[in-house]
Amino acid sequence: MTTLIDRIRSGDVRSIARAATTIENRRPEAEKLLTRLFPFTGGAVTIGITGPPGAGKSTLVAQLVTTLRAENRNIGVLAVDPTSPYTGGAILGDRIRMQEHYGDPNVFIRSMASRGRLGGLASATMDLVLLLDAGGMDTIVIETVGVGQDEVDIARLADVTVLVLVPGMGDDVQAIKAGIMEIADVYVINKADLPGAGRLQSEIEAQLSLAHRTDGWVPPIVQCVASEGKGTADILTAVRSFRASCSRQDRVLENWALRLREMFRERLTERIGVTELHAAAEEVASRRRDPYSIVNEWLERH
Amino acid sequence: MTTLIDRIRSGDVRSIARAATTIENRRPEAEKLLTRLFPFTGGAVTIGITGPPGAGKSTLVAQLVTTLRAENRNIGVLAVDPTSPYTGGAILGDRIRMQEHYGDPNVFIRSMASRGRLGGLASATMDLVLLLDAGGMDTIVIETVGVGQDEVDIARLADVTVLVLVPGMGDDVQAIKAGIMEIADVYVINKADLPGAGRLQSEIEAQLSLAHRTDGWVPPIVQCVASEGKGTADILTAVRSFRASCSRQDRVLENWALRLREMFRERLTERIGVTELHAAAEEVASRRRDPYSIVNEWLERH
Repeated sequence: MTTLIDRIRSGDVRSIARAATTIENRRPEAEKLLTRLFPFTGGAVTIGITGPPGAGKSTLVAQLVTTLRAENRNIGVLAVDPTSPYTGGAILGDRIRMQEHYGDPNVFIRSMASRGRLGGLASATMDLVLLLDAGGMDTIVIETVGVGQDEVDIARLADVTVLVLVPGMGDDVQAIKAGIMEIADVYVINKADLPGAGRLQSEIEAQLSLAHRTDGWVPPIVQCVASEGKGTADILTAVRSFRASCSRQDRVLENWALRLREMFRERLTERIGVTELHAAAEEVASRRRDPYSIVNEWLERH
Repeated sequence: MTTLIDRIRSGDVRSIARAATTIENRRPEAEKLLTRLFPFTGGAVTIGITGPPGAGKSTLVAQLVTTLRAENRNIGVLAVDPTSPYTGGAILGDRIRMQEHYGDPNVFIRSMASRGRLGGLASATMDLVLLLDAGGMDTIVIETVGVGQDEVDIARLADVTVLVLVPGMGDDVQAIKAGIMEIADVYVINKADLPGAGRLQSEIEAQLSLAHRTDGWVPPIVQCVASEGKGTADILTAVRSFRASCSRQDRVLENWALRLREMFRERLTERIGVTELHAAAEEVASRRRDPYSIVNEWLERH
């Protein structure tokens, strides 16, 4: 394993990819590997990019990568994709818009499947972040659709959370905005050349005036047209301002508390075997027992 | 408590609403109440309505309620809304499109907040379903945005899962479709008068031909224009065909297995106190310890 650790630390793409598969598939050796890699982590900055479907997140991420590459950074991209059965979880780089970066050995791209996982997605993502961090990536971009709680949790676990919105979406999207309003550190209005960009800006400002962040940070609103590369440098400036000005340590601690709890939850769940679980389900479905007393019995036993 | 149980069972809206708040806020008496109500459940049919933002789910639900009311059914509507801070979790009926049903004592409407919950959303929703079931609702409609894993889980926990799509959405939406393809029992093409409805139909058919359901059910695709009430009766027919033709018992058992596991997870998490959690987070953030060994220590202790 020492050789593997060394190879990962030297940034060897093939070793990192193999380790990522081990981690994603939750193979037994994954935990040992991560334990060994952990001391070499903490150097990377993670940027969580979230927003509703159709906001142009993938295009924006591709442009951010271009900008960061011009600064000669090593970059990891994790796309958390709710499409397991079709894109496949283990395919290295399957996003059309990222194509220009595939040949670049300093950009590590990976799509993660989120379907069929029943929780643990945030944990698995953050394990991959640790791997890329140990592998020498300076910046790790996590792209996730910002609608479900799991996905919002992933965005929140990043060092900096960027919310991407576009003008002229329906009122379901308004709801989404409200839901993730509190966790965004930077707002991006993408496709800012479309009608309605000004109105969206006012709406965000109005909602921000209602929010009260404990850390005192006032999230900036950056307009961009990602498809033309306009405004991506401003996004990075905003991200860096947040990291420079804010009490970063509080965020790091809060994130670790969330992660540790989630890891504990996951491991505990394994204590009920499949046979026992299904026998219990049958008792409940037939109304012979109620679910609450079964769970209490399990709690006493474990 | 006997009086409260009796009132709920008689369908008293005020008692049901009060009990719903108790359950949503996870007050200590909630579990006792649910344990007492449980023997009186099992009569209601739950329909999970899911789909991407902007698919017109709320309009469709309002129309379904109208159709079901014409059959003189008692109906519960649970809207799982990713917007806690602005709509508020405990407000009885805050959806504009449902307005025509607010005065109707046989329609119980409730919006649930999903933000800031950190898991447990599916559990909480299904606890409310049990309450409404015991309260004499024949049909319980659960509306949820079908993007995140939590929201997909909620839709899956219903007796019948309906996926609502609309023509002409971007390719992020394609991804969403793929992600929830396997759990949908009925497909609805809403706004079927828009250009692209035919293409969407072909796309769904193509994807369905790739899927392999173990129960042999072939999900029908229903076209509708919810805003004009067109096609909603066909949706109910499709829902009833699924219930009549399928091995319903398998689904019920699988759902209870999922729920029991989730309930167990949630309760177990409470065993690590906040102080301990934050002390551990600090050790990890400072790299004094790795998260994996901390979780293993907790597992040995609990």
